[in-house]
Amino acid sequence: MADVGFIGTGIMGRPMAGHLQAAGHRMFLGRHRSAPPPELLEKGAVECATWAEVARRSEVVIVMVPDTPDVEAVLFAPGGVAEGLSAGKIVVDMSSISPTATRDFARRINDLGAPYLDAPVSGGEVGAKSASLTIMVGGPVSAFECVRPLFEVMGKNITHIGTANGDGQTCKVANQIVVALTIEAVAEALVFASKAGADPGKVREALLGGFAASRILDVHGKRMIERAFQPGFRIELHQKDLNLALQSARDLGVALPNTATCQELFNACRARGGGAWDHSALVRAIEVLSDYEVGAGRA
Amino acid sequence: MADVGFIGTGIMGRPMAGHLQAAGHRMFLGRHRSAPPPELLEKGAVECATWAEVARRSEVVIVMVPDTPDVEAVLFAPGGVAEGLSAGKIVVDMSSISPTATRDFARRINDLGAPYLDAPVSGGEVGAKSASLTIMVGGPVSAFECVRPLFEVMGKNITHIGTANGDGQTCKVANQIVVALTIEAVAEALVFASKAGADPGKVREALLGGFAASRILDVHGKRMIERAFQPGFRIELHQKDLNLALQSARDLGVALPNTATCQELFNACRARGGGAWDHSALVRAIEVLSDYEVGAGRA
Repeated sequence: MADVGFIGTGIMGRPMAGHLQAAGHRMFLGRHRSAPPPELLEKGAVECATWAEVARRSEVVIVMVPDTPDVEAVLFAPGGVAEGLSAGKIVVDMSSISPTATRDFARRINDLGAPYLDAPVSGGEVGAKSASLTIMVGGPVSAFECVRPLFEVMGKNITHIGTANGDGQTCKVANQIVVALTIEAVAEALVFASKAGADPGKVREALLGGFAASRILDVHGKRMIERAFQPGFRIELHQKDLNLALQSARDLGVALPNTATCQELFNACRARGGGAWDHSALVRAIEVLSDYEVGAGRA
Repeated sequence: MADVGFIGTGIMGRPMAGHLQAAGHRMFLGRHRSAPPPELLEKGAVECATWAEVARRSEVVIVMVPDTPDVEAVLFAPGGVAEGLSAGKIVVDMSSISPTATRDFARRINDLGAPYLDAPVSGGEVGAKSASLTIMVGGPVSAFECVRPLFEVMGKNITHIGTANGDGQTCKVANQIVVALTIEAVAEALVFASKAGADPGKVREALLGGFAASRILDVHGKRMIERAFQPGFRIELHQKDLNLALQSARDLGVALPNTATCQELFNACRARGGGAWDHSALVRAIEVLSDYEVGAGRA
């Protein structure tokens, strides 16, 4: 069992830290926006006054905060993790942030003698609560092997993408590209079929039996037909991820034409107050453009 | 057992007609481009001099030809199917053609007392040979039930999409939209990840374990990484299908932004001589735009 620091116990971090505590690890919690959860403190977790103290008292420091600037602050602001690090401690950033910024953060942490892993997750709140997150990891093999038992407490599909820091974040961005563009593909197909007079439910069923089959056609196709747009995964969060994709693509010199279009279609949803809709509501942008709602032709 | 007419015994039609004959149906073959296959004639299939004769001698007339104008000619040209029809015979168009033209063809056939089914397939040559085609059917329930035993000889996932003619073709178009756009999604993600320095094979593996999973990520993601672009399904054929999508969308008033982009990216492949590449080679267009080949970073 390890002494584990955990900074960021919000919607995702709270159940993740809970699983680690339940597995027997001694938890040192740092405050980021939300206060450490009472149920963890009651069971012996220690609240630290600063992020530096979290780092001083832990062997592994896990960070789970919303965005790139949050990670930078937690690591390098006065009283941040960097001030409490010493050789051999491992920093694990499980937030979803910029791959290029990650490489910079890792270098600065490595300069203090500490290995760094970027280990973003997918699976959302449901996956965090059920300990079935997909975890995509970049960083040195030795650090990965050391932290793997902790990952296994929080997730199920754990892949070491590569030894370079940023590889985990790159994989997460790739994941969010595929998810957004597949949602958009299903949206175009269902609006088309629906306005052409076909039953979108039958079309979804037929397509699931063939080469067009995907988890997104299954789950989000159903949401589009049943108009079930409560999140799930909010459009504003997916926009953050596509922003990382488009920004990194500009840095790298990569052209992502349909990712750019998807971001604009998400913008169109937000223009109608849809920032907190589930990302499957991307279909509403295609519906507005086509002046027709999926399933509108049915009795 | 029925007397079955079959017009169009090319790459797809030849094995399909073969399965029907093997199941015990008496086959009447009409010539379209390719001559009737000798192995069917040897086993008792009858070659008819005209398409009208095929219709006169059969209870069910199946048409399997390349495009909308081919179907129109087979049905309505002098000596065409329409001339040989009488009340109660069923016309089944298994070609992939325009949903709107289909409604017109069906109306003209119905005027002769014959029900019409549009029943396009997916699964390609492999599916035709192994009798595992996905078949998407539009038209009256009674005709569908009557022809279903023939469909079951040729395919596996047989869905009656709706009672209106054109519904089957609409579903096929929706299928081709989802397939093209999902290929494009995987292409953007793998070029991005690759140029960012991650191993595209590891990224594909991680994504297959999560919400981004699809048959296309599995099969075509592998093709992109292994540079296996022999068809499979040729870009020029997928362009025909996206043309149907975009043309029908114009008629219907539906906006398909990413379908339009995919068609242009296929054009870019053709500009480089890629009309006969497998459609997964769409990735090459993103690679040209990004000046980087998937997997180029690996030793």
